[in-house]
Parts: sequence; structure tokens; C-alpha cells
Amino acid sequence: MKVVADISIVPIGVGVSLSKYVAACEKIFKEAGLETRLHAYGTNIQGEWDDVFAAIRRCHEAVHEMGAPRVSTVIKVGTRTDRHQTLDEKVRSVKSKMDD
Amino acid sequence: MKVVADISIVPIGVGVSLSKYVAACEKIFKEAGLETRLHAYGTNIQGEWDDVFAAIRRCHEAVHEMGAPRVSTVIKVGTRTDRHQTLDEKVRSVKSKMDD
Amino acid sequence: MKVVADISIVPIGVGVSLSKYVAACEKIFKEAGLETRLHAYGTNIQGEWDDVFAAIRRCHEAVHEMGAPRVSTVIKVGTRTDRHQTLDEKVRSVKSKMDD
Amino acid sequence: MKVVADISIVPIGVGVSLSKYVAACEKIFKEAGLETRLHAYGTNIQGEWDDVFAAIRRCHEAVHEMGAPRVSTVIKVGTRTDRHQTLDEKVRSVKSKMDD
Repeated sequence: MKVVADISIVPIGVGVSLSKYVAACEKIFKEAGLETRLHAYGTNIQGEWDDVFAAIRRCHEAVHEMGAPRVSTVIKVGTRTDRHQTLDEKVRSVKSKMDD
Repeated sequence: MKVVADISIVPIGVGVSLSKYVAACEKIFKEAGLETRLHAYGTNIQGEWDDVFAAIRRCHEAVHEMGAPRVSTVIKVGTRTDRHQTLDEKVRSVKSKMDD
Repeated sequence: MKVVADISIVPIGVGVSLSKYVAACEKIFKEAGLETRLHAYGTNIQGEWDDVFAAIRRCHEAVHEMGAPRVSTVIKVGTRTDRHQTLDEKVRSVKSKMDD
Repeated sequence: MKVVADISIVPIGVGVSLSKYVAACEKIFKEAGLETRLHAYGTNIQGEWDDVFAAIRRCHEAVHEMGAPRVSTVIKVGTRTDRHQTLDEKVRSVKSKMDD
């Protein structure tokens, strides 16, 4: 089952600068062969359900290993049986409607 | 790795009444032996990472089988290495601070 | 416009124990006359759009005043024009389907 | 109070194609003078608290007027008192850590 997901991770108990933890997870997603798009409040991810969630689990584990005693993550995940849409197609679909 | 999670599922393309889909997922979580608390905008779930996310996947599959062509779900997931807290302990911890 | 909302607030840069900040926001919601239900990963809130979001703003301000340099909050908000449903009715609606 | 926010809106009861509703909200955000970045699972928004949430309210109203009886939206909102970061700075901050 293919998914389009979005993840934003918040390490807790490690101060205010979170970007190095986010960067560590980006590397994990890329090493897993997942297609990603980083944005200002998270990361879009596209792939098979099990691959995506295994990578998110490794991200939690990595952030704990980097010293965060607590991690709170928000995941949005969409699946559809009618057709497949890539990350770029989803953005283009909205943009084309804005020109109307 | 133990998690405290919260899930809210939105089947798309099946009209405005969503409660039967939510109920189907509640049954799946219970059958998986997960501890859950239903609330007005989702469900708290507690369990092992792999058990929780396997059940959420079955929930998506079940909702598609019930006829929803598209499903969009929001998952919040928290892990911690400092100590374990149950669903009830988390609520009690806040309530005790409100009495101060 | 009436809303059913759910909020979970994460103060960043203040250590791992977040319950006193959540408790401060609960007090703000109650003082605003909003109906709330605390759960293990947030709080359900019901009220008029402007009242709910004004209270969430005051919650952010209060958590900053308590010393948190950074706050990241997840809000789910639902509105509907077909009918009004209370927090309790939403839970009952799912539970009734689980008995089928 | 400046905010960096992220919004994803799901109109319910209008079928599976949601992009025209998202496009209508994008227009509302732009007309409000807010800086936005559309991505595959929502939109980043940057601005003053009251301006951002007033625009999100108008988005809900517009989607109802377009025929959706029910709308469920997920908003992430971050505020910080230590310093201000733009949408682009947040992305650059993560990317710079990935090169380490």
C-alpha cells in the first residue's frame, strides 16, 4: 500500500534548536530510498507503508540515541485506492486550480 | 519501544458520517490487544511501536474495504527513554498540576 | 461558527516535564468558559471559533511567560453546517456503532 | 506575536477531489498578505497570529460556501520568543546540518 505522508518531529528535553535532529531523520529517510520534500514545518514522504513507518521508527531511535529523552511526532498519512498521486502531482493539482 | 499515540482517521469520499469507520478501527485496536481511550477527536493508543502501527495499517485497509477510496489520518506518537507513563498517568499528571 | 477542536501543546526548551504547562492552558480554557475534555495526548475543546482561538493564543502567551522560549502546538478543528454535535455526542456516536 | 504555521484542510462530504478547496484557501491566504509555501500535505504560513487565524477561519467559511457540509483541518503553529525565523531560514537550517 503506497502512502503520501508528512512528518514533523519534536525532540523534547534538548533545548530549543531542533534542526540537527530533523537533519538526522532526513538522512535516514533518504538512506531508506524514500522520496522526501523538506518544508518549514516537516517533511513530505512518499513510499510503501511499511518502508515509511520503519524509517520513522528508526528516526525516533536515532533522536533518542542523540540524547533526546523524549520525542513527540506528528504524522499525517494518506492512502487511496482510486489512483496514485506523487508528491509533485499533488502540488501541481492545487496550483492548476489557482489559475482558474 | 513503547509508544503513547493518538490517531484520528478521516475517510474521504463516503459522505459526512464517519463514525462507523472509526468504530471499525476501534475494534481492530482492541482485537490487537492495544489499550485505547476514545475521545471526541480521535483515540489514544498505548502499546509497542510495531503493534500500534500494524494496527493502524489494518485500520486503513479496513476503511478502504468498507468503500472509502481515500483515507487521511493524523497520528501523534510519543516515545521516551527516561521513564514509562501510561495513558491514565499522563492525564493524572496534568490534573494534579491544576489543583496547585 | 461553532467548532469542535483538539489541541496538544509542546513547550520546547524547558526540559521533559510538560504537565504544568498543559495545566496552565487547561485553566485558561476553563476561565474562557469553554467546554473541555483532557485526554492523554491533548484536550478536546468546544465553543465558538473566535473564543477557542483567542484562548489558544492566551495559552501560548502564558507558556512563554512561564519560561518556554519556543512552543509548538497541534490543533485539529472541525466545523460543520449540517448539524451540531457536542463532544459527548461524537463519542457516543462511535460507541453505538461498536455495539453493532 | 509572529507565528510559523502549517495547515492542511480536509473538506468532508464532497467526494475525493479536494484540490479546488485547497486552492480557494491558498487564494485567501495570499489576499490576506500572508507568506505561504504550498507542499504535498498542506501549506506553510507565516505572519501575525491574528492575521493567520482570521485567514484560516475565512478558509473554513469559504469551503462551506463551496458546498462542503463538514471540514476537518489540522494546524501546526509555532511561536518563539528567543528569535524570529522565516520559512526559508527554517528549511536552510536543517539543510545546513545535513551537509555535516
